[in-house]
Amino acid sequence: MEVIVPFSTDRPKSRLSDALSPEERAEFARAMLDDVLDAVDAAGGEPRVLATDAVDVDPPVTVDDRALTEAVNAVLDARLGSEGAADDETDGSPEPVAVVMADLALATPAAVERLFEAGRDADVAMAPGRGGGTNAFVASHPAFRVDYHGASYLDHREIAAEVGAAFTAVDSQRLGTDVDEPADLAEVLIHAEGRAAAWLREAGFTLDASEGRVAVVRE
Amino acid sequence: MEVIVPFSTDRPKSRLSDALSPEERAEFARAMLDDVLDAVDAAGGEPRVLATDAVDVDPPVTVDDRALTEAVNAVLDARLGSEGAADDETDGSPEPVAVVMADLALATPAAVERLFEAGRDADVAMAPGRGGGTNAFVASHPAFRVDYHGASYLDHREIAAEVGAAFTAVDSQRLGTDVDEPADLAEVLIHAEGRAAAWLREAGFTLDASEGRVAVVRE
Repeated sequence: MEVIVPFSTDRPKSRLSDALSPEERAEFARAMLDDVLDAVDAAGGEPRVLATDAVDVDPPVTVDDRALTEAVNAVLDARLGSEGAADDETDGSPEPVAVVMADLALATPAAVERLFEAGRDADVAMAPGRGGGTNAFVASHPAFRVDYHGASYLDHREIAAEVGAAFTAVDSQRLGTDVDEPADLAEVLIHAEGRAAAWLREAGFTLDASEGRVAVVRE
Repeated sequence: MEVIVPFSTDRPKSRLSDALSPEERAEFARAMLDDVLDAVDAAGGEPRVLATDAVDVDPPVTVDDRALTEAVNAVLDARLGSEGAADDETDGSPEPVAVVMADLALATPAAVERLFEAGRDADVAMAPGRGGGTNAFVASHPAFRVDYHGASYLDHREIAAEVGAAFTAVDSQRLGTDVDEPADLAEVLIHAEGRAAAWLREAGFTLDASEGRVAVVRE
């Protein structure tokens, strides 16, 4: 399955600016991207980076400097086609395509496989992020398109219903954890074992369990 | 499978005090407990409430006013026995027992079934909560005991390793979402459909997607 991994080369991870400098944020974002690409590859997916500017990675890269929603919908237009075209030319079931965010540092091959599997049984299979975001999905319905503004998970569920696409949710904490805010760094140190976790440890971050939910501190 | 659901009748959900009055917190905590008991029951589990004081629910109730760690370990002592006793009297594999927190308002029968299934394949199967907590587990190893202080998920993984118990993690956002803080209320409104979600709506809470991750506002 082709797996699109959107990646912003322009001021990535700005909500981590209290914890990391701009250069550090770029390095950390790149480490997370590499972890996600590894997990997708190990799950049998064929990753393609959808970047806002050139980026030096092994998988193929599509550069599109438009906003996320427009760039992803351009991919869906190309891969899933319009509803009319599908009705005319195929049996109405295009090959599924996945979109997996580049900041899912907890993603494992097993979690990505569960996403793929759910996407074989439904027209749209989606892993919600904390706070109502859309962290990963597989779509095979020709008319499904995205809108990443606001509570996109609920909007996407509604869009699927509107176009008559069977929708299923993927219940995964690993896919549900997008790393945006300082509190999310603790999740990386607790659960991840890839480059992003190594980068944080190298940068001096450790877990602090002194009160309530575990947080990170930097030495 | 017997499923212990610890429930505090004493000042429940104090970290929600900015959002809810003491009476409201008690009502909301009870709604979440009922949702959890329903999900456990629908998943084929046999719930038993482990409460700090008397509580009027359908399932059997054990009252134990000790701290969570001590109360849960008393249950594990009784159900799993000591390592020596198990070696003497059984084949060393006691019947598994589950412990599921009462504030998992997003729990569904499917998520609880995944926990049960993981617990049949491993000595200890555990669903981590956000921030390194332990939201739910199944244990069948006679020597496994809990320690809920601090980053308990990592401690429990270590305890399992120390006693030679095969450990597996259950990757579930629904089981991973314990409702402790105001931001967690948004997850209930986005994903849950039971009594806790209805209670929040009745109390005037709605989703606010005006910035970043979705939050709740009260009308």
